[in-house]
Amino acid sequence: MAAAARHSTLDFLLGATADCNAVLKALQPIFQEQGMTETVHNWEDHGYLVTYIKKNGSFANLRIHPHGLVLVDLQSYSDDMKGREEADQLLNKVEERMKELIHGNIKRVKRLPAILRGGVIDRYWPTADGRLVEYDIDEVVYDEDSPFQNIKILHSKQFGNILILSGDVNLAESDLAYTQAIMGSGKEDYTGKEVLILGGGDGGILYEIVKLKPKMVTMVASNIDQMVIDGCKKHMRKTCGDVLDNLKGDCYQVLIEDCIPVLKRYAKEGRMFDYVINDLTAVPISTSPEEDSTWEFLRLILDLSMKVLKQDGKYFTQGNCINLTDALALYEEQLSRLYCPVEFSKETVCVPSYMELWVFYTIWKKQTDI
Amino acid sequence: MAAAARHSTLDFLLGATADCNAVLKALQPIFQEQGMTETVHNWEDHGYLVTYIKKNGSFANLRIHPHGLVLVDLQSYSDDMKGREEADQLLNKVEERMKELIHGNIKRVKRLPAILRGGVIDRYWPTADGRLVEYDIDEVVYDEDSPFQNIKILHSKQFGNILILSGDVNLAESDLAYTQAIMGSGKEDYTGKEVLILGGGDGGILYEIVKLKPKMVTMVASNIDQMVIDGCKKHMRKTCGDVLDNLKGDCYQVLIEDCIPVLKRYAKEGRMFDYVINDLTAVPISTSPEEDSTWEFLRLILDLSMKVLKQDGKYFTQGNCINLTDALALYEEQLSRLYCPVEFSKETVCVPSYMELWVFYTIWKKQTDI
Repeated sequence: MAAAARHSTLDFLLGATADCNAVLKALQPIFQEQGMTETVHNWEDHGYLVTYIKKNGSFANLRIHPHGLVLVDLQSYSDDMKGREEADQLLNKVEERMKELIHGNIKRVKRLPAILRGGVIDRYWPTADGRLVEYDIDEVVYDEDSPFQNIKILHSKQFGNILILSGDVNLAESDLAYTQAIMGSGKEDYTGKEVLILGGGDGGILYEIVKLKPKMVTMVASNIDQMVIDGCKKHMRKTCGDVLDNLKGDCYQVLIEDCIPVLKRYAKEGRMFDYVINDLTAVPISTSPEEDSTWEFLRLILDLSMKVLKQDGKYFTQGNCINLTDALALYEEQLSRLYCPVEFSKETVCVPSYMELWVFYTIWKKQTDI
Repeated sequence: MAAAARHSTLDFLLGATADCNAVLKALQPIFQEQGMTETVHNWEDHGYLVTYIKKNGSFANLRIHPHGLVLVDLQSYSDDMKGREEADQLLNKVEERMKELIHGNIKRVKRLPAILRGGVIDRYWPTADGRLVEYDIDEVVYDEDSPFQNIKILHSKQFGNILILSGDVNLAESDLAYTQAIMGSGKEDYTGKEVLILGGGDGGILYEIVKLKPKMVTMVASNIDQMVIDGCKKHMRKTCGDVLDNLKGDCYQVLIEDCIPVLKRYAKEGRMFDYVINDLTAVPISTSPEEDSTWEFLRLILDLSMKVLKQDGKYFTQGNCINLTDALALYEEQLSRLYCPVEFSKETVCVPSYMELWVFYTIWKKQTDI
């Protein structure tokens, strides 16, 4: 198995401008003691970049900015435990030497947890608002490409298995909070009700609602979801139980069909639901609704859903990360452009594996004659 | 204000060994078009490290590992918007060129969100289990050194103000879940009860319990907490309300004293409590209890707390991150070494700003004569 690289960093933010030459002179011996070969680049006006190369394939960068910033980077092989210790010791020495040299005038010393690059297990799955987060992934459970997307199920020590679709964290076995939120946060009575789920291929919503004795739950998952269903029914059992083992149960059915024609058919037939739960996708991050067909698709689904929703019914859906305020505002604007007037409320929920707060919507038809 | 560095990465994990020379030849022109000066190091058996230096102070590393790993690093000034775009375009071009060259045999292309190094606002606060996470910090609200620790209150867009003590995320305004968990998760009736809080300088527990009409809450915060209290009463109002504005209220008092002598005094006086809530520190991560006096301190507090706890009283405390299984096991072992037999239960809770699941303990005296 090919070795990954372990990238360590150590940063010094100084309280004043740096004497670049003094810093270089102080740190040089530490790298040289390691038998590293030095190459110095001097910008004159931008300080130094010094590269240190070791025979075993590892290397270090020392970047000294005259305005008072000293950055050290170190790349070594991740499977080389001796090299790992050596790297940590080297950074310890650099930190000591810097503290001696600059004593009292270092504003911040920052050493980030080392980044594993090119590892078989990828632990880095950025949030929807674009922040870098590392997960405690220790196993690749499932990794397949469908014609539509990449489907991964990765095991996290604390979150259980996590479903990741084309790089987006979708749901972990720890995330009952997501399912509860998109079902109305425990405030609804599903007993004897007609429920329509759009998407929801991980089976979480279906599994939780079936427990509540509904009259009938219809889940419409398209071809796109087929491989998601296959992966989840095997590896996300804490989320979906046995509900995906069969496409039909006492009080539920799963249709593998595109939801648009199904919704149109139901609308034509006059089939109505107490609850419609849209678990297709998050609110698009793109905020050019005129150019982006996903927004049109989103409005079409909303319009058709309202057509099959009883007058006192409720429509639940996820929004997106609370920080994506523009995208959420745009979504809310779409709600005023439906064929019928609607009202909505929103709730912010902490979904454990998301590492960011998530917004959920409840939408209902405006009651005009009360 | 001194510019921070923006560190971008782009990694290619190849499906086979790399023709290092071909990769170098393919990517070289992209860097050269940027007017970057090249320095090539060839390890023979470990591939290439190529350094590209630009006149404006930015630089790139291209590390080509023969076993099939190509890593690109780029450091530029964070406040240089043009440089930022150029960096992104450069990485786009590298990605395109690599896909042309290796077509079909790249296992993974990974571009992490760029890391800001040496910025005035530090966004990186690793979890207790040592993972790298970036917060959406946009303001330094408070940053002071007490003789005991560094106290920061940073503003997060989604979590509100976050209290960070010596680099550890303590509590955010979003984290009512923490306070509720350490109060028994809503299953306790505090009406008319005697409550003792150890620590809790952020005021969250005190604020929530006072709402529940206890007979008397005594919070014992040491000198160590004085500056925490000062910072929180100003900047964590969502957490502590007005409860820290005065050290005495209708049903509470705050003692600024070391908790050990206070506990000893109460034990001697025979003063007993219905609830003792220990919010001093998390379970120590060090797992050498014989060498580490924090474990001894922890047992002393537990013993003294049991002495002032009514026979049917409850003791609540936080544990640590659920992944730190060794530390938690050791904590549980300590519970069997107290002066009186106790039983305990634990609960895992998602505290929004922690980005990891947290364990809380409920401890009570073993009822022997039932």
